[in-house]
Amino acid sequence: MNQNEFVPQIPYGTRDFLPREASRKRAIEAALAGMFVRWGYDEVVTPTIEYLDTLTLGAGCEVQQNLFKFFDKNNHLLALRPDMTTPIARVAASRLRESPLPLKLFYLTNVFRYEQAQAGRQCEFYQAGVELMGAAGPTGDAEVIALAVESMREAGLAEFQISLGQVEFINGIMEESGLALQQRQQVKLAMLTRDLVGLGEILAISGLSREVQHLLQRIPVWHGREDMLDQALTMVTNEKSRGALANLAEIYQLLKVYGVEQYVTFDLGIIRDFDYYTGMVFEGYTPGLGFPLCGGGRYDQMLNSFGAGAPATGFALGIERIMLALERQGKTDKAEAKNFYVAWPSGRLAAAITKAGQLRKSGYSVEVACQAQTEREAAASQTDKGFERLIYLTED
Amino acid sequence: MNQNEFVPQIPYGTRDFLPREASRKRAIEAALAGMFVRWGYDEVVTPTIEYLDTLTLGAGCEVQQNLFKFFDKNNHLLALRPDMTTPIARVAASRLRESPLPLKLFYLTNVFRYEQAQAGRQCEFYQAGVELMGAAGPTGDAEVIALAVESMREAGLAEFQISLGQVEFINGIMEESGLALQQRQQVKLAMLTRDLVGLGEILAISGLSREVQHLLQRIPVWHGREDMLDQALTMVTNEKSRGALANLAEIYQLLKVYGVEQYVTFDLGIIRDFDYYTGMVFEGYTPGLGFPLCGGGRYDQMLNSFGAGAPATGFALGIERIMLALERQGKTDKAEAKNFYVAWPSGRLAAAITKAGQLRKSGYSVEVACQAQTEREAAASQTDKGFERLIYLTED
Repeated sequence: MNQNEFVPQIPYGTRDFLPREASRKRAIEAALAGMFVRWGYDEVVTPTIEYLDTLTLGAGCEVQQNLFKFFDKNNHLLALRPDMTTPIARVAASRLRESPLPLKLFYLTNVFRYEQAQAGRQCEFYQAGVELMGAAGPTGDAEVIALAVESMREAGLAEFQISLGQVEFINGIMEESGLALQQRQQVKLAMLTRDLVGLGEILAISGLSREVQHLLQRIPVWHGREDMLDQALTMVTNEKSRGALANLAEIYQLLKVYGVEQYVTFDLGIIRDFDYYTGMVFEGYTPGLGFPLCGGGRYDQMLNSFGAGAPATGFALGIERIMLALERQGKTDKAEAKNFYVAWPSGRLAAAITKAGQLRKSGYSVEVACQAQTEREAAASQTDKGFERLIYLTED
Repeated sequence: MNQNEFVPQIPYGTRDFLPREASRKRAIEAALAGMFVRWGYDEVVTPTIEYLDTLTLGAGCEVQQNLFKFFDKNNHLLALRPDMTTPIARVAASRLRESPLPLKLFYLTNVFRYEQAQAGRQCEFYQAGVELMGAAGPTGDAEVIALAVESMREAGLAEFQISLGQVEFINGIMEESGLALQQRQQVKLAMLTRDLVGLGEILAISGLSREVQHLLQRIPVWHGREDMLDQALTMVTNEKSRGALANLAEIYQLLKVYGVEQYVTFDLGIIRDFDYYTGMVFEGYTPGLGFPLCGGGRYDQMLNSFGAGAPATGFALGIERIMLALERQGKTDKAEAKNFYVAWPSGRLAAAITKAGQLRKSGYSVEVACQAQTEREAAASQTDKGFERLIYLTED
């Protein structure tokens, strides 16, 4: 094309997916959607825009500060959805409230968070995920974790690990500790950010027993297999923390049935960035990427906010992060091949159109040249455009 | 679920797609994406949010009044995209400017227009479409129209019609007429809205010759096959209008090669609602729906606005409108069947999980019950949830 120096920009934290990337994205999304359907999950599509009130009802007021907000013509405050858990809870509690429980729902769409853009996460990014509503207990939790593992496998990832925790483990310790609410929140924040120095400073002036301090300092760096649950059980006496460990043990037994236990390690320091989790929580990691590819957990209270009391569990997976992980692992072959470039000399366009139609019927991807070309020009176009084969209609 | 009376609302002009609808939507979109790829088109995904300046650069300032607008933290004015033609032009003129021409691009996404919601078109709605950039002349136009026909067939529609016009036909008459710019716009607006009474009133005081008045009054109600072009040719002498008719005749010859001419009638009164069209324009209709399912045309000037001089042609298709047309034609069977509901008595969950895994490997959709059930309860769940078959694990 003829060009001058003008290059239009796009807003901070947004991106274009060019053909190769868009094709890989579509292939991954199609694979995930197919898998969610095979697991008995139904898709729901909700508006990009929600009332601010709806979003804060689900995710709490803290969600507000990172929203793209604006007014409609009637001065209602709207926002672009920052995740899909709240909108799906809204749908479950309204239009799907007569549906038989449990509800097994999935989504595959974009969400928006007005915050620092980072590797694999812009301000607009794509998520796939499921919400399982109306099923309490480890059966649903194990299904959701197994489905997260299968999602990463289905997307093409070989090396990854699920870190599994339970928010009630730390909650139990906190409640038992007698710490003030503010101190508890400081401890949780230090754990969320894995700020060991800060955590040590808070604990040093906490007045907690040496044993509890030791346990709390160990949690953020403590990862392990099944035996870790038994060890942890010897270190806590409060009922809530012990219940959390028993819950994880039950979930783990089911993960063995699913045959995915080799992907799972325990990490009792996981505190997810949404406040609504009430039970098991997990994150999926891959070597070389310092952020989770997926994450989720149990959130038994959110549906209450929408007037529908039902326990719930689910996870979300970052599509761009999966794409980035696949690139790092050298697996970018998901883009579809381009098969035939059909070119023609003057007077042979009709034959080219007919030939292309036949090839497309057989399922091939075919581009017809938009103007007459010599065979040499056609071969150059085929190469430039990346088609596997050239068909050149001869003059007769 | 336990319910109180609280029902959260969604913003004006938005909607939820519940499972059946979402499944049909995904099936239609997957079919269209597959077809675009077979026709040699590459997908591009662009941000939901663009700078307002970018959108007005492409589509003109009139587009502003129907945008969802808001400020970013640096007080730049942003907006949700109202169509994909401008964003794709931006990508073509920036990150794809080194790509070999012609560019054949497609998209499948949501767009936003802050206007009166109508049947098949909310303020947020979904579009599929293609843009063919860097190809002048009827070859590209015919390809795009043929692809629009194939899109509607691929989506499952049997009965539909393409109305084909050329904006230069009326432009030629207008220029020859000596009407003032304001009068020309009045005439065009009356034609766009098919306001025959209003058109008559404008023409009556226009000072135009009786023949030209007659022609202009006839245009909005004049539809025909190939012979209509010959008739029209006897009614205009200006070069621009005659060129438009010759262009349509060439396009029509190619549509015969594509074997889609039976879907095409001529309508010289088509004036699309974006101002950027410069050549052929078309709309696709189906019996019983009073709005177009798809529309498009040639827009040879827009890429100039982005500093890249290249002719372009394309179309967009409304996904919700296609879904509505399919419903009206009784074709709603695109939703995927749900195959197996696997239920279990206490103690047999592991066997159920294993059985479900085997069935999923064979490609079936399978839901595992989230709690122990009796066989009778399981049969009720299977029916309620719409699964074709029940597998109940027996006690041993």
